[in-house]
Amino acid sequence: MERDIFEVRAQDGGGRIGELTVPRAGVTVETPALLPVVNPHVVTVDPSRLESEFGAEILITNSYILYKSEDFRDDALDGGLHELLDFDGAIMTDSGSFQLAEYGEISVTTEEILRFQHDVGSDIGTPVDIPTPPDVDRERAESELETTQERLELAATVDVGEMLVNAPVQGSTYADLREKAGRHAYDTELDVFPVGAVVPLMNEYRYDDMVDVVAAAKRGLGADAPVHLFGAGHPMMFALAVAMGCDLFDSAAYALYARDDRYLTVRGTKQLDDLEYFPCSCPICANYTPDELREFDDWEREELLAEHNLHVTFEEIRTIKQAIRSGDLFELVENRARAHPAMLDGYRALGAHAAQLERADPASKGAFFYLSGESAARPEVLRHRERLFRLNPEGRVLLTEGNPSKNYDESWRVVPPFGPFPRALSETYPLTAEIPERMDGAGYESAARGVARLVAENQECEFTLAHYDWPESALALVPESVRVVELSDA
Amino acid sequence: MERDIFEVRAQDGGGRIGELTVPRAGVTVETPALLPVVNPHVVTVDPSRLESEFGAEILITNSYILYKSEDFRDDALDGGLHELLDFDGAIMTDSGSFQLAEYGEISVTTEEILRFQHDVGSDIGTPVDIPTPPDVDRERAESELETTQERLELAATVDVGEMLVNAPVQGSTYADLREKAGRHAYDTELDVFPVGAVVPLMNEYRYDDMVDVVAAAKRGLGADAPVHLFGAGHPMMFALAVAMGCDLFDSAAYALYARDDRYLTVRGTKQLDDLEYFPCSCPICANYTPDELREFDDWEREELLAEHNLHVTFEEIRTIKQAIRSGDLFELVENRARAHPAMLDGYRALGAHAAQLERADPASKGAFFYLSGESAARPEVLRHRERLFRLNPEGRVLLTEGNPSKNYDESWRVVPPFGPFPRALSETYPLTAEIPERMDGAGYESAARGVARLVAENQECEFTLAHYDWPESALALVPESVRVVELSDA
Repeated sequence: MERDIFEVRAQDGGGRIGELTVPRAGVTVETPALLPVVNPHVVTVDPSRLESEFGAEILITNSYILYKSEDFRDDALDGGLHELLDFDGAIMTDSGSFQLAEYGEISVTTEEILRFQHDVGSDIGTPVDIPTPPDVDRERAESELETTQERLELAATVDVGEMLVNAPVQGSTYADLREKAGRHAYDTELDVFPVGAVVPLMNEYRYDDMVDVVAAAKRGLGADAPVHLFGAGHPMMFALAVAMGCDLFDSAAYALYARDDRYLTVRGTKQLDDLEYFPCSCPICANYTPDELREFDDWEREELLAEHNLHVTFEEIRTIKQAIRSGDLFELVENRARAHPAMLDGYRALGAHAAQLERADPASKGAFFYLSGESAARPEVLRHRERLFRLNPEGRVLLTEGNPSKNYDESWRVVPPFGPFPRALSETYPLTAEIPERMDGAGYESAARGVARLVAENQECEFTLAHYDWPESALALVPESVRVVELSDA
Repeated sequence: MERDIFEVRAQDGGGRIGELTVPRAGVTVETPALLPVVNPHVVTVDPSRLESEFGAEILITNSYILYKSEDFRDDALDGGLHELLDFDGAIMTDSGSFQLAEYGEISVTTEEILRFQHDVGSDIGTPVDIPTPPDVDRERAESELETTQERLELAATVDVGEMLVNAPVQGSTYADLREKAGRHAYDTELDVFPVGAVVPLMNEYRYDDMVDVVAAAKRGLGADAPVHLFGAGHPMMFALAVAMGCDLFDSAAYALYARDDRYLTVRGTKQLDDLEYFPCSCPICANYTPDELREFDDWEREELLAEHNLHVTFEEIRTIKQAIRSGDLFELVENRARAHPAMLDGYRALGAHAAQLERADPASKGAFFYLSGESAARPEVLRHRERLFRLNPEGRVLLTEGNPSKNYDESWRVVPPFGPFPRALSETYPLTAEIPERMDGAGYESAARGVARLVAENQECEFTLAHYDWPESALALVPESVRVVELSDA
């Protein structure tokens, strides 16, 4: 099936800049995009300001709350959501699945809620799926997934005009179920693909499990499927999620956190009371000190904090888009991985999916920066090692960190973390990498694995490795058949 | 000698929040502080705005330029610098040493320029030192240092009233000369201590050499000496330099870079032309897109870019101060180290000075986050290992990642990167650390070194190490006398 509502414009690893066409709103939304959550009962920042001051192209509100609301139901049906909220961009509506997960039941069917979403003028609606939490037993995950899949199939038959419809991907923490769910959702006629029920993983800082869940869902979905990491609103983890292939995020956090005097940063959440200085220069933080902010009335302080939270959240979306354009999204992820040990776990988990990311990654970018031991697990390093397959040296081969030698039939370079390569490739990406003078064990070990791979593919050659002071842990990975020579600096 | 102009208020590693009293200006300056460089001939952002909009408490201007200036010399002498520049905070003046380094000679002596600085109302003046570049031969470094030292001694005899005087620390890239220079400077009656001639190191991205130079100078200087990293204005490296013990920075970059359409970020410098999105939410970046900024006249664009550059620079100073207050300066440095491989080299070089930093580091902070292999080299890890000295287990001792066992006389915990410790210490800093589930080789190896240390100090005990899947590189560091048992997850 061909999708004509989502077009990928630029790619870096699994991350992409895309254009989501939302026909009913008559707009396109550039992704990665942030959807601020707007609760019509408690508006912290006016939706019109979200658009004009923060650049929001799309927001999300809960149709089930409207459906049950005596205050707003009729207004929404009469004037439509865009008028009710005073917002000209695209509006996505949730269905009440969250309420289902929280309270155990809701009094609406998928068909009813989809029709209601259509009738209030939603641009992207949502069926009532079952958000199965992590770690449930497999039987429950399977049977709830079956229900979700039935609802998606039903949703595909409801006439909702131009409204796009979400097809949530569930399956708890079972990778095979998430993959199967992704494949099923992609095969429906539906449009946008939220990876569902990841909020409990976020709340428990299980970013590695989050990465595994997204990777599994992505394996089932097509490359042209717009993917929404549903309920994930902390800017700290956006770069990691985008690198895995997520395109849409929603944030209730900007407002909920502000209510509790919590201040968002890409390095984690701070309590306003713990701050003496604002680590930010957004218009709020450039204007006030923490002491000054603490002096405001509760509701003014809440609004100002929500504005800061929105500024930093949209700033991170822009930072990610720029990184994709510049081809240094992984460098950004490396940086963000240092926000918390659990984020480092997430980044290390992403390393295990390098082969999956490699398939979408552009063959050439600006520069590869080696920034930590984790850089050795980047898709580009893996691709280089795979490429060694195709290169066949002959005779007596020197792999050296030093100068070439005429005593050999061929003299290749060897550079951590990539390993060996012919000199002629020195100026090609990623071998133009900037690497630290002080290399780490992971980088040397990766280079040694490259040597081992080359030797395994070319058993008829006679290899010599000439290195500067590689650690034991790397030399142990070099096959015994290789003659190893240590170079000296002098 | 006791210094009463600089008081350290909070400390984290070598980093500190201090209060520099500038008697002639009648103000105190909170450090770490940024001194914007103001060239009276080319004012990009008015000094009064530096104060009111950006929070600058101190700036720096070049007294030699004024001394030689037909336009400003008389005004400066008549009305004074504060009036000339319209700035109420503290004003530091440079002496022309930079011009000396650039053009080989200047036509003023230390005595003349100090008197001139005094006469124009400078609050902190500078003698004419010799900024010896990196990598010169030792003879030149020594003889130029001798000249610098004579000038400092001379400067100490000039009557400059309440004006503070800088005592630059030179010595090229010779650690012993920098240390000796630091000690000599500290022993003069002078007040503030610029580490000089580091600009060439910055320009060549030699952040590891910069760290070594600062560490050497600091060994010579007293802990109560305010230290200025002279000429270093890129916010990318402020956190690293503060962690080494630098208190003052000056930035000409904010204006010079803006002139070339260069845009500062803590992850490096960008060309405006390469940006499609602003990775920032300062008042400039929240208001304009890169496309919009490109449409301005040259001079307007330059001013707006300079304002962005100042915002991000002062933001980083606030971020660092907050990190010192929160006790997570090293976590910030870990993050900033991922801006460029050369910054990683700088951070790895800092690891080699852990013992020096450890002496000033507070014994307890909020939380220790393990964020990369480099975390294993933090001063807190070193201190823990030194502390093992004082703890003497007895008899048959189990060091285990699992549960305690009654089959041993003592059951200690062992946790990467710290190594072994008695269970009773579990709730003390830094053993309350947050560590990733997916530990790296450097963390395991550090724990193994802790085991080796404990064993070496307690040869009469019989040790058993029970671990979950430590890598070979770590197990190889465990002494042969230790019985090693692998635990299984089941």
